[in-house]
Order: sequence, then C-alpha cells, then structure tokens
Amino acid sequence: MFSVALIGAGRIGQIHAANIANHLQSSLRYVADIHPDSAKTLAKRHGAEVAGVEAALADPAVDIVVISSATDTHAELSERALLAGKAVFCEKPIDLDIERVRQCVELVRQKEGKMMVGFNRRFDPNFAHLRQSLVAGDVGELELLMIHSRDPGALPIEYLKVSGGMFRDMSIHDFDMARWILGEEPVRVHATAASLTDPTIAEIGDIDTAIVSLQCASGRMAVITNSRRAAYGYDQRIEVHGSKGMLNVANVVESTLVKSTVDGVVSQKPKHFFLERYSDSYRIEWDHFIGALKGEHALWPSAEDGERALVLAEAAVTSLRTGRAVELNWV
Amino acid sequence: MFSVALIGAGRIGQIHAANIANHLQSSLRYVADIHPDSAKTLAKRHGAEVAGVEAALADPAVDIVVISSATDTHAELSERALLAGKAVFCEKPIDLDIERVRQCVELVRQKEGKMMVGFNRRFDPNFAHLRQSLVAGDVGELELLMIHSRDPGALPIEYLKVSGGMFRDMSIHDFDMARWILGEEPVRVHATAASLTDPTIAEIGDIDTAIVSLQCASGRMAVITNSRRAAYGYDQRIEVHGSKGMLNVANVVESTLVKSTVDGVVSQKPKHFFLERYSDSYRIEWDHFIGALKGEHALWPSAEDGERALVLAEAAVTSLRTGRAVELNWV
Amino acid sequence: MFSVALIGAGRIGQIHAANIANHLQSSLRYVADIHPDSAKTLAKRHGAEVAGVEAALADPAVDIVVISSATDTHAELSERALLAGKAVFCEKPIDLDIERVRQCVELVRQKEGKMMVGFNRRFDPNFAHLRQSLVAGDVGELELLMIHSRDPGALPIEYLKVSGGMFRDMSIHDFDMARWILGEEPVRVHATAASLTDPTIAEIGDIDTAIVSLQCASGRMAVITNSRRAAYGYDQRIEVHGSKGMLNVANVVESTLVKSTVDGVVSQKPKHFFLERYSDSYRIEWDHFIGALKGEHALWPSAEDGERALVLAEAAVTSLRTGRAVELNWV
Amino acid sequence: MFSVALIGAGRIGQIHAANIANHLQSSLRYVADIHPDSAKTLAKRHGAEVAGVEAALADPAVDIVVISSATDTHAELSERALLAGKAVFCEKPIDLDIERVRQCVELVRQKEGKMMVGFNRRFDPNFAHLRQSLVAGDVGELELLMIHSRDPGALPIEYLKVSGGMFRDMSIHDFDMARWILGEEPVRVHATAASLTDPTIAEIGDIDTAIVSLQCASGRMAVITNSRRAAYGYDQRIEVHGSKGMLNVANVVESTLVKSTVDGVVSQKPKHFFLERYSDSYRIEWDHFIGALKGEHALWPSAEDGERALVLAEAAVTSLRTGRAVELNWV
Repeated sequence: MFSVALIGAGRIGQIHAANIANHLQSSLRYVADIHPDSAKTLAKRHGAEVAGVEAALADPAVDIVVISSATDTHAELSERALLAGKAVFCEKPIDLDIERVRQCVELVRQKEGKMMVGFNRRFDPNFAHLRQSLVAGDVGELELLMIHSRDPGALPIEYLKVSGGMFRDMSIHDFDMARWILGEEPVRVHATAASLTDPTIAEIGDIDTAIVSLQCASGRMAVITNSRRAAYGYDQRIEVHGSKGMLNVANVVESTLVKSTVDGVVSQKPKHFFLERYSDSYRIEWDHFIGALKGEHALWPSAEDGERALVLAEAAVTSLRTGRAVELNWV
Repeated sequence: MFSVALIGAGRIGQIHAANIANHLQSSLRYVADIHPDSAKTLAKRHGAEVAGVEAALADPAVDIVVISSATDTHAELSERALLAGKAVFCEKPIDLDIERVRQCVELVRQKEGKMMVGFNRRFDPNFAHLRQSLVAGDVGELELLMIHSRDPGALPIEYLKVSGGMFRDMSIHDFDMARWILGEEPVRVHATAASLTDPTIAEIGDIDTAIVSLQCASGRMAVITNSRRAAYGYDQRIEVHGSKGMLNVANVVESTLVKSTVDGVVSQKPKHFFLERYSDSYRIEWDHFIGALKGEHALWPSAEDGERALVLAEAAVTSLRTGRAVELNWV
Repeated sequence: MFSVALIGAGRIGQIHAANIANHLQSSLRYVADIHPDSAKTLAKRHGAEVAGVEAALADPAVDIVVISSATDTHAELSERALLAGKAVFCEKPIDLDIERVRQCVELVRQKEGKMMVGFNRRFDPNFAHLRQSLVAGDVGELELLMIHSRDPGALPIEYLKVSGGMFRDMSIHDFDMARWILGEEPVRVHATAASLTDPTIAEIGDIDTAIVSLQCASGRMAVITNSRRAAYGYDQRIEVHGSKGMLNVANVVESTLVKSTVDGVVSQKPKHFFLERYSDSYRIEWDHFIGALKGEHALWPSAEDGERALVLAEAAVTSLRTGRAVELNWV
Repeated sequence: MFSVALIGAGRIGQIHAANIANHLQSSLRYVADIHPDSAKTLAKRHGAEVAGVEAALADPAVDIVVISSATDTHAELSERALLAGKAVFCEKPIDLDIERVRQCVELVRQKEGKMMVGFNRRFDPNFAHLRQSLVAGDVGELELLMIHSRDPGALPIEYLKVSGGMFRDMSIHDFDMARWILGEEPVRVHATAASLTDPTIAEIGDIDTAIVSLQCASGRMAVITNSRRAAYGYDQRIEVHGSKGMLNVANVVESTLVKSTVDGVVSQKPKHFFLERYSDSYRIEWDHFIGALKGEHALWPSAEDGERALVLAEAAVTSLRTGRAVELNWV
C-alpha cells in the first residue's frame, strides 16, 4: 500500500485524490494547499489529513508526492520531493522555462529518482488502443499523423496571461502525443497560427488557432491543429496513416442517443471538457504509476518526456516568430 | 436493340422512359397514356411516338411492353401484351385481387410468356449487397430478418381509398423483400397494427402503422415494421441476423455533410422518397430485365413472385381482422 | 449513512458491493453467501464482515438488505427482510412463479415496505437519455417502440434449465423496458419464436430467438427481438418512433478506434456483456435507490414493476404455446 | 441545343462524352483523338462523327470544344478553340508552366472568350453542400479548413515522370478547393513532404506524402494532407472550422452495408477512385457549364482559377525546395 501526499487541491487535485483513494494499493494520507479550506474539504472527503508541504515531505511514511498545484511551483516541489526520497507524480508542465525543466530532469538523473509527468491522454483507452494497433502493425509503417485538439472555450484571460502561451500550455499535450505515436523525434517544426476567436487573446500577444507541422529524420510527418474554442465542445481526435491503412479515433460523445426529425439526424456532442472526456485516463494513469513503482513496467511519461514536449512547443513559438521552420538536434 | 412501348406516362413511367432511352440496348418507340398531353410530353423528350395501346401492341417491331399505368389496368394490359407475344415489364402490384393475379400468372405459364414484376428494391445496390453477403455465408445461417419501411408522409386520401390498404399497397414491397432474403416461404403471418398518424386513414378503414411477424417452417423468422409517415423522411432499412453475425443496411442520406454546433452533431436526413432513394434501383432493374431477355440470367421477380407477395399481404389483412396468426400452405 | 447487508456474493453481488462501498452515503456492513469463501473474499475487499442471513437481518444497525443470491431465494429473503423492517433491493426476477411474486408485492403493500427491483437498464445513461427526450416531446407522441436485445452467447445449459425459459429470464428486462418507455400497459401480446442457435436449448424445451409484439389500448405498439447468441457481442439497442421523428440508441462499443484497410473500415464491437455494458447503470441504480430512501424521489422500479414485467413474460409464453395473441386485463 | 466537339477520347473524355450526349441541351457532334480507334469507338457509342481537330474547329455549327487530351496540348488547343470563337471546356491543368497558363488567361481576357477549367470537385454534391452551408453562415466565420486527399495508389511511373510532380498534378485540385472554400487568397504557403510510399517516386525526384499549410491575410488558414496511396481506397474529405462550429464531409462509400461479426463491425470502403467517387460531379459540372453559356449564372471555375491554383502549387514546390514558407502577392 503506497501512502500519498497530495499538493494542490484544485480541479485536477480532486480527480487525483479520488483515484488515489479508490485504488486498492494506494491511500491518501495528506492534502496540502495554499488555501487551507480547499485542503480541508478534500482531505475530509477521503479520510486524509491536512498538512503543510514541509511536514508531508518530512514524514517517512509518505511514499509518493503528487503535485497538482500552480505551474510555477511544479519544478521546486518536484525537486524537494525527490530530495526527500519520494516518488513524484507531477502535473504537466514541469515548468514553462525549458532551462528550469532541464535542472529538474538532471536532478532525477543524479538521484536516480522516480518521477512521472501527467500526460494523461496517453492513458485514454481509445488513444491507447490506437497506438497498440499501430505498434502491432495493423496499418503497416506510419507515414502521417494528425492530431486535432480544440478546447470548448478559452480559459479566463487572467489564466491565459500566465499560461506561457497556447503552444506551451495547451498544445504541449499534442506534442507529447505526437512523440509517443511517431515513435521517433521530430527534427523540423513549422507553425502557422493566428488569433481568430477572441481579440483579447491577440492583445496579450497570444494565439488561439494553429496548424503545426512536424517532420522526423525518416521523412514521417505529423500535423497538429488546435483551437482555444470549438462551439460544439471538446474536440479530441487522432488519425494515423500507414502503409497499409488508416487508424482513427473520433470524439467520445455524451450519449449514444440520436434524434431524427424534420430538422435532421442529430447525434450528441463530444463530452464537454477534459474532466468528462478524460476521467478514465486519469484513473488508468494512476494505476499505471502504481504499477511502475511496483516494477511491473517502466515509468513513463518521464521528466525527460516533459522536457522534450516543451522543446517542441518552444520550436513552434520560434517558428511563429521567425516565419521559418525550426530544425532540432536531439542528443 | 429492344424496342419498347411504354403504357403510363406518370411518375414511374417517366423514370422507366429515361432508363429505356439511356440503355445502350433498348429504345423507346411508343408512349401511351390516357392523358394525351402526358404521353406527348414524355414521347417528345425521348424521341418516341405517341400511340394508342392497341396500335402499340399490334406493331410487330415492338419487343417489350412496360406497364406503369393505374393499378386496376395492370392485369388486363399484361394479358393483352402477353397474348400479342410481347415481353412484359409490369409495375407492382399485378392486381389487388389475388384471383385476378392468379389468372395472369396462369397465362404466363400457358404461353411460356416473359413477364417481370417491378419489385425494384431487389436492385437497390445496398440491399443487393446485403443479400449477396448473406448468400456468400458471411454471417452464417439466417435466423431473423428485420425490414423497416416508412414513407415520409401519407399519399392523398383519394389514392389511399383505392390503394387496397397499406399491406397490399405499401408493405407488399417488404413482403417481396422478406421472401427474397429469407430464401424460404413464410408459413405463418401475424399482424399488429393501428391507425395512429392521421384520423382520416382510420375513417377509410385502413391502418398506417404496423408490425408484421413472419415465420418459416425451419423456424426462421422476419419482422416488418411500417408507417405511412416518418417525419425525418423515407426510412428504408434492413437488418439480418445469422449464426455468425449481423448484416445491416442503413438509410441513404441526402449528402455526407455533418454540421457540429452548440446544438449537436447534425447529419443529413434520408433521401426524401422513392424517386430519389431508388433511382439507381430502377436503372439496374431495367438493365437486369434486358439481360434476362438476352438469356444472360433468369427472369425475376416473376409474376409468381408478384402473386406470392400478395398472398402474404392477404394473410396480414386476415390476421389483423381475426386477431390470430394465419397459417399458409404453399404448393 | 446507510448500512447495508448484501446476500449473494456472486457476479452481480460483487458489482453491488463495490457500488455500495464507493457511494458516499452507504457502507457495506455484512456479506452473506452460501459459499463462505465467496462471502469472505468479498467482505475483506471492502472492509465488511461475513454474517449469516439471520444475524444480518437481526442487526438493528442494518438499514438495507441487497439480495443478489439465486433466483429461487429472492422472494423469501425479500419477505424476511421486509418483515425485519429493512429496505430491500432485490435482483430481478422476484420469482419465476407469478403467484409467488404477487405474495411478495402484497406484503410490500401491507407493510408499506420499501422494495426496489433491479431493472438496472432503466439507469443506463443512454436509455435514460432516450426516455427523457421522449417525455420532453422531442419526437411527439410515441407510435412504435423497438427493443433489440441479444446476449453474446447462451449461458450454461445447467443455468438455462432452471432459468424459467428465455422470456422469464432474459426478455423480462425488455418487458420492463417496454412498459417504462411506452408509459402505458400493453393489452395484447404475441410471440413468434424458435430454437435456432443451439439444439440443446430445444432439447430442454426452451427457445433462443424471438419476436414479441405488444400493443396498448391506445393502439401504440412495441416489438422486442431477442437472441441468446449474437456473434458480434452484446446487442442492446432501442428505437422509438413518434409523430415527429425517431429516437435511437446504438450499441456502446469497446473503443472509438476505427481501422481502415484494404479489408474495409472496421469499428469496434459492442462491449462484451452486461458487466461491461451496464457498469454505469449499476452505479446509477444504487445512487437512485439511496436517493429514493432519502425521499428525494419516488422508489422505482417497484415490486409491482417486477410483477408486471413477469405478467408480460407469462403472456409471451402462453402466446407461443397456443399460437394466438394473448389479451391482458390490468386492474 | 449546343453542338460539341470533344478532343481526347480517353478515360475523362469518355465521361464527358456520355454527359454531353445525355444532357437535354447539348449534343456530341465530333470526337477527335490522336488514336483514331479510340475516337471511332467513342463517336459510335454516342452517334457522333470522328473528325480532326482542324475540321472540328472549322465547323461553324460547333459551339463548344471540350479538351480532355494530354496535358501538354491543353493550352494550345484552348487557344485555337478560343480564336475560332468557340466556348472552351478544358480539363485541368491548363499547362504545367505558369507562364504558358498566363498566356492563355490573357487570350481569354483579350477575346472576351468563354473558358471553363475542369475543377470538377467543386460540383460534388457533398462538397457543394458544405460550401453552401458555410456561405449561409451555419458555422459562422471560417477559421481553419482541412482538406484530405489521397489516391488509392500511385499512377504508373511513366505518367508520374511527366506529371509535373504531385503538387502540380494531384494537389492542384486541393489548392482550387482551398481557394473556393476560403473565399480569400492564401498569402503564405508552407510545405512538408517526403517520398514514403514507393522508392521509385523518390528516384524521379517527386514526393508522395505531404502536408501543406496556407494562410490568408486575415489570419484564416488551411491545411492540405495528401498521399499518392491509401490502402483503403480514395480518401476525399473536407472539414471546416468556423466561429460557430464545424462542417465536415466524409468519404462516399461503396454501399451502406455493415457486417458485424466476431471480427468487428465492418463498413464499406470509400468508392474506389475518381471515376466512381466523382461521377455525379462530372455530370453536374457539365450542366453548370451549359447553364453558364445560357447566361443563367457566371462561368466558373475560370481560366484564371486554373492559373491561381497553379500559383499555389508552384509556391508549395518552392517551399519544399527552400525549406521556408513562401509569401504570395496577388494582384
């Protein structure tokens, strides 16, 4: 039984708390949050205690630290937890500054620490099925990958201002997915983008609609399309073209009800947002983390996966600024 | 090149005229209609001549007579054409009176005449594909068949009054389809029905909504559901369950456009009615008839198929009246 | 917090146990089973105790008794629990003998007891969405209902022998669903059926494939199609035709992955069987029971719902035996 | 009645011939081809005469010249027909050399000639429905367009050698479609591409798999994905994202038959290739041309549309060569 301290009792923290508590091999011991009431409410719901970060890290009974606090605390908290000898589960991104991320990755390496980054979409059963089918050779060799990712509506402008921009904040999930499915690092990144959905996004210097092309040394390629706003809901689709065919995963819808009337044949919209769409993936992600700590399989996505997804986001930002494709040399 | 006389220049007659004229091995020579203007317009469009029925039948150059006039003229015109030595293509039903139909079937037998009945749905490429897949054994032995057939809206009450009732007029297509797909005669028929869509239909003693169950001696069964009105359009679907799986054919829609908005994911409705839905089937039906006359394959659906579909319709009428299942003895 | 004694630690019992334990307002106190090991394993998993039925019913701290033991124990255990003043959740069917069921219903009435019957499919989010849309008038007045229900494969012959036959054992869910959606009692039942999937089923005098037609006094009708075996998996679909359109709920599939290759465009099969297909419905059903006990809404499906579904099953059995439709007079 | 001379009796020529002959307001008078037998066979089928180009152009009774000969003859034949005062329907592309195309466009302007270019996909009923819905504002303002176009398999290498390369030969249809749907000229083009499907394509210096990003001055953008080979057949899909939703058009499939077995739920593949997929579009295209000549609507796609699609293809070629996005200044 793994004993867990959770730092950050917000939306994502609450999901992790329930999954930790319901898992047969983990228990939630401490909840920490800068808002004491949030920590208290969440701790009570699952029979845990409220604790400060320092106390939680100091308790030798704690095996795992889960970090779902504000982005700018991820790197420091991860380092403190690693130095305290804990296994770390950190929400993405580790940091918005690539150098800061690298320090963290370096510490994991030095300490031979255990750190997993929350790219939960890899654990979505549909996307996982797609990758499994691809790896099994069902459609031969991959040639072109398409990832379509749109949020149902932009987050508050105050959030967007400190988000690091759409590529670092939102597309980062798609960059991770692209790396995972391509099975090979992209060496060339080109971005086309604009602010089309909301003028206030342009005012803070950000974009909301984008096409990013990636190409690997083998010639294989990927394209990501993103938008901060899809009127019909959370658009999360992947399509893979291989030498022997195509794989694709459509949106997961609210129900299978279809209404046919004089106005047309109306199916349901995609599940509204990530809490609904990816509820399974968070649960499976946690089970995967526990399995990795028990040595049943490798621990991924790693801190280095977090770093590499951010490198792609940085390249997209640079491409947009310079108007040129950016070449990458991975070492 | 087969020379054709067409009797009846109405909606269906116009479809046949175009298919006759466009086929590389048939030409439209005469058009006859009780309304001279209709005959004239249609004849002119395809470079044919207007003629009376007698003159057309008397012309030895005429090989084929196509009968798409009013239902109560089908049997007599078929017989006259058969006696004149012509090949006959007759729209369904041959007659609403089963005894009258039997006289016609008997004449075909005596004269070894060539007569095809217009059960055009057998030639719909989707239904034909379903049957071909079934016959090929793709889903093993047939166990249960479902046929769903709904019109977009009831025809004028004046038409319905002389239609012979829903089972003889509309469901007859489904009875033919059931026989064709079952590959075995039903020996038991039970009908559940009501008039639900329009009180004037009840007033003329007819029904507009029905469930008909059929069962063969082998135990295999079929269910037909019908309605005179489907708000979303012309509903024409078939589903087959076999020992190794299911085959189904969905509606053919107006276009593949799908609109996803805040109101849902809206696909297009089924093609509006039989002229749109079955335009391919009429063309292929004609080509099949020509092929049969050239000896390339058997001539079906035959006059006897017309008779047998009507026997099932009669049984459904009787079941509804008596409240009991009707047993059939085929000879 | 409701304290629960669970009787029957088999497949369904295990599902209920997890839902009881995970619900924030119920806790699993006792597990009883005629196989002590089964009770022990399940009790341990959720921190409950093993107890005999008598002891469990005698404990005044127990609020709810959940009965998921063998069918022939349902009625007696329900009665004992009711007499002990407990709220009862009983798996369907209450009994295979309609008179025995009526005794139970009578006791509920006399004692003003609280008893819910496990027609879990009403709580499937897709079917619930369909009914909600129908009640909201989205497709006008109901005219014809279709329920398609096929198991992936027949249960062991030893089970089937004591099952009461397909109509009482399997179709009973569909009879309940028909009553729930029709919103009006069927007054006429006709069954067409055969044993087609497995000769051993015929040998025990049962059927495995059926079409059942139902009609209400208003003329509205329903058709149920059933099979004990669908090669492609668990087939669970509902379609409603109303004056303004159609509602339908398709199968819930294993994943949204679609593979397009030279062999065709391959989607995933339906979720395998009821444990997978209806896992949500069991959870929501339990939450609904708790809500009803708290007075938030009515307690349904009731023992009387259990009785009435069985009356329809009896009528189908009689129709099959006599070859006639069966008329029902509800009081 | 428009009298037509057809030059080029190959695959596309044969389609045009049938549409010309079946149209009520056009008739096929002459067929010319460098292979006399091909001309003879096609002329005979539709009751036309074989003629040389010079004779056909010299006949004052000829109203329209349809050019479906080899690409390198398009420009010269168009010019000769325009100078002879004929209306011209020319297959795409007008020429592979942009300067040669411009000469042709200039001649149309000087002579106020009538010339339409065969971008038939604009007349596909599904794509036309999508554009109509977009123009009607169903999904608000366009933000991002996706065009997916894959051939079922590469054409013979001898054809590819003289094709002008994938962008000029195949993607040109998608560039025209992008311009038509965007309703605004792209000002920036970036291409990512490789030869992945067949090494012989790399050997002749061509590509077979590509992602092309386009952006307009307004910021609106489009992405085209192409492949010379899709194992599952001819992939032709369009998706539009607007401020109020998404429109998309899926592939048109061979039939609506779906087989569900133990191996999965198998739908039919897309119609095999352009002859099958776009048969309606060729027919509607011809009707549109006749309508334009009768003054019922404007004549488009024009020679200038042909020029502009080629400009985009040139830009994609340049982007691929230089590794940079190409900026375009339209005058």
